[in-house]
Amino acid sequence: MGIIVQKFGGTSMGRWDRMDTDRLLQSAERVAKTKAQGHDVLVVVSAMAGLTNLLLELAGRVNPEGEPREFDTLASTGEQISIGLMALALQRLGYPSISFTGAQIGMKTDAAFTKARIQSIDTDRIRKAFRHGKIVVVAGFQGVTDEGDITTLGRGGSDTSAVAIAAALKADVCEIYTDVRGVYTADPRVVPRAKMLERISYEEMLELASLGSKVLQTRSVEFAMNYKVPVCVLSSFEEVPGTLVTEEAEDMERVMVRGVTSIPEAKVSLVGVPDKPGVAAKIFGDIAARNINVDMIIQNVGSDDHNDISFTVSRSDLKAVIAIANDLVKEIHAQKVQSDDKVVKVSAVGVGMRSHSGVAGKMFSALANKGINIQLISTSEIKISCIIAEEYAELAVRALAEEFELENESKELEQ
Amino acid sequence: MGIIVQKFGGTSMGRWDRMDTDRLLQSAERVAKTKAQGHDVLVVVSAMAGLTNLLLELAGRVNPEGEPREFDTLASTGEQISIGLMALALQRLGYPSISFTGAQIGMKTDAAFTKARIQSIDTDRIRKAFRHGKIVVVAGFQGVTDEGDITTLGRGGSDTSAVAIAAALKADVCEIYTDVRGVYTADPRVVPRAKMLERISYEEMLELASLGSKVLQTRSVEFAMNYKVPVCVLSSFEEVPGTLVTEEAEDMERVMVRGVTSIPEAKVSLVGVPDKPGVAAKIFGDIAARNINVDMIIQNVGSDDHNDISFTVSRSDLKAVIAIANDLVKEIHAQKVQSDDKVVKVSAVGVGMRSHSGVAGKMFSALANKGINIQLISTSEIKISCIIAEEYAELAVRALAEEFELENESKELEQ
Repeated sequence: MGIIVQKFGGTSMGRWDRMDTDRLLQSAERVAKTKAQGHDVLVVVSAMAGLTNLLLELAGRVNPEGEPREFDTLASTGEQISIGLMALALQRLGYPSISFTGAQIGMKTDAAFTKARIQSIDTDRIRKAFRHGKIVVVAGFQGVTDEGDITTLGRGGSDTSAVAIAAALKADVCEIYTDVRGVYTADPRVVPRAKMLERISYEEMLELASLGSKVLQTRSVEFAMNYKVPVCVLSSFEEVPGTLVTEEAEDMERVMVRGVTSIPEAKVSLVGVPDKPGVAAKIFGDIAARNINVDMIIQNVGSDDHNDISFTVSRSDLKAVIAIANDLVKEIHAQKVQSDDKVVKVSAVGVGMRSHSGVAGKMFSALANKGINIQLISTSEIKISCIIAEEYAELAVRALAEEFELENESKELEQ
Repeated sequence: MGIIVQKFGGTSMGRWDRMDTDRLLQSAERVAKTKAQGHDVLVVVSAMAGLTNLLLELAGRVNPEGEPREFDTLASTGEQISIGLMALALQRLGYPSISFTGAQIGMKTDAAFTKARIQSIDTDRIRKAFRHGKIVVVAGFQGVTDEGDITTLGRGGSDTSAVAIAAALKADVCEIYTDVRGVYTADPRVVPRAKMLERISYEEMLELASLGSKVLQTRSVEFAMNYKVPVCVLSSFEEVPGTLVTEEAEDMERVMVRGVTSIPEAKVSLVGVPDKPGVAAKIFGDIAARNINVDMIIQNVGSDDHNDISFTVSRSDLKAVIAIANDLVKEIHAQKVQSDDKVVKVSAVGVGMRSHSGVAGKMFSALANKGINIQLISTSEIKISCIIAEEYAELAVRALAEEFELENESKELEQ
């Protein structure tokens, strides 16, 4: 008998606008079943589907430029509603249970409101509740500063809450219940015969999460990897095994590519940049100073001591980057700024790349065979990414899924 | 320049189902105006109109029999949403402001969930925010136990929060903004020419609140009286002076009756009760043991050593009282139980009764002149109450308003 952390996302809590409580009761039954097996169970819940957006819309209507502290006070209520409801649902099923906000279990974070980072968790109250035989229900997505201010962890933060609590409790497993069955080799909406993975390594999952897979939030995977928390991604609607995210095992390397993803990006080019030392440092220094992450960079050596420098950023940063680039062009006497917000990054990920050579070549020719032009390339030890035109995104993912044998034999995905 | 506490109720915060933010911004402007006059301002807010009911409905759907602790965790989110929105609205108007939940300002209560009582308030964080020139926004209706559990103070609890904070801060005044202009001599829907009172004593207000006036919650008036907090009831929609609730002044006694009220009650009669010592004690002991308050009691001495005992309770307790009474009738060998849930208590209240004699006689004859039968009577130093049939409620209030000159000369109430 161990400690099991179970996290339920918004869709598993029901839709707010419909005041739907069926999904919640269904999720509660799942929790109760685990408790009935004799485990200590801690449940982390998200806000009901649609509620967080509604709250942020309301706040935005009142004052879109207000202090982030107040947005967090407001947004954190969605999860507080969920903990109350989940505890009540479990009590209805006959299981003693108690709810805690982030503050109540001492989920300490820094004061970076709307995107706070967890610093420590005080497990005393949780362990005390366990000793009293209670199921513990904790609000995801939220924490509290040393001063007692309420913080939120950013979108998808409930995954991080769950994994962090699992780490603090040294839980046997952190189960993430979601509206999909597990982690797939590719987005099943794009590749209908995409395989569901039984196991995946932390590193692969981390790459997939940051490259477009929405199943788990990137920071939650980092946490799981750092604290070696076994994470299981499961469907909250069907009782099927799901995907275990765990440490790399030797047999994992037999597979060359574990998954393919695509994620929207935007490309910015500075054309006719004088070929002088320090210019690139100036460009990317100015962008970094605005807290904007640059993803891929390429420099084309041109004629007349002038180069073109292209890089990609997330689309939400494009407007700010163009403004910075326009200022820079004047300052460094470059020719002009070009931008393209219709590009995507397609990636192939797998720890098998460490031992298999030729993955990049296979990827490039698979794309070339479909007539897809590669604009930028970047690689790491376990992934290869290419920037291509957005219109080819789905075609590219399907081509790579076929090339790297990421599909099931059977014609139809059973679902 | 002093400290001013302002409390805004649900209607002053806007309707949740319409995502209405106009009312909120209007209330924020009122706060800002007070701050601009140089005062330290603390705002206590209720949940948006309709939200608390929605939350409790949701909870009731999941589990109406769940632990009250979880209902409080849930219900307290309504006010938490309001503090975030009010702080954002004030910031939009250019006024630095900061929100606090009950827990964040150490609003300590006992652990009587859903009807907790305030024990102490830690004003350090509030005073620190004042020193930084900030408007402080506090969630009404909620507190926290020593263990850190969230509690709520019961319906209308935001009034109590506001008065308690005003007491702790030794505020110059606690302004209660509401959807009426102030305290009236009678319900203006019943008596269209009812006068608005400029001043009323704590004791009178306490009687009026417990006898049916819904303007202020009874406990908030008790608090104000005990700590001598001047309370002002004002309209949040019109800039008119309102009613000051304050200590009794000598000139207040010149008025015989300050106000008249009516409140629904239910009457229970035990018929044919054996005339033996200890029977009444048994009856009311059993009822009190179930935490039910009995209001008025009358015993008619009958023939054959048998009496009839009648008493009134609030209508919501009637079902439980009938069950107790039926058990009692068997146990004490009484004849039967009769009940009537169509009675009201009409009352006349005024500190002037201390010095004016003959108020009761005037009241009884005013009712008799309209052919209204008085079923039970109770009096205290500053009030007289009569139980009458519900169908005469409005007629009785109008007759008493006329008798005690509680109406304006002008024909129409200006509004």
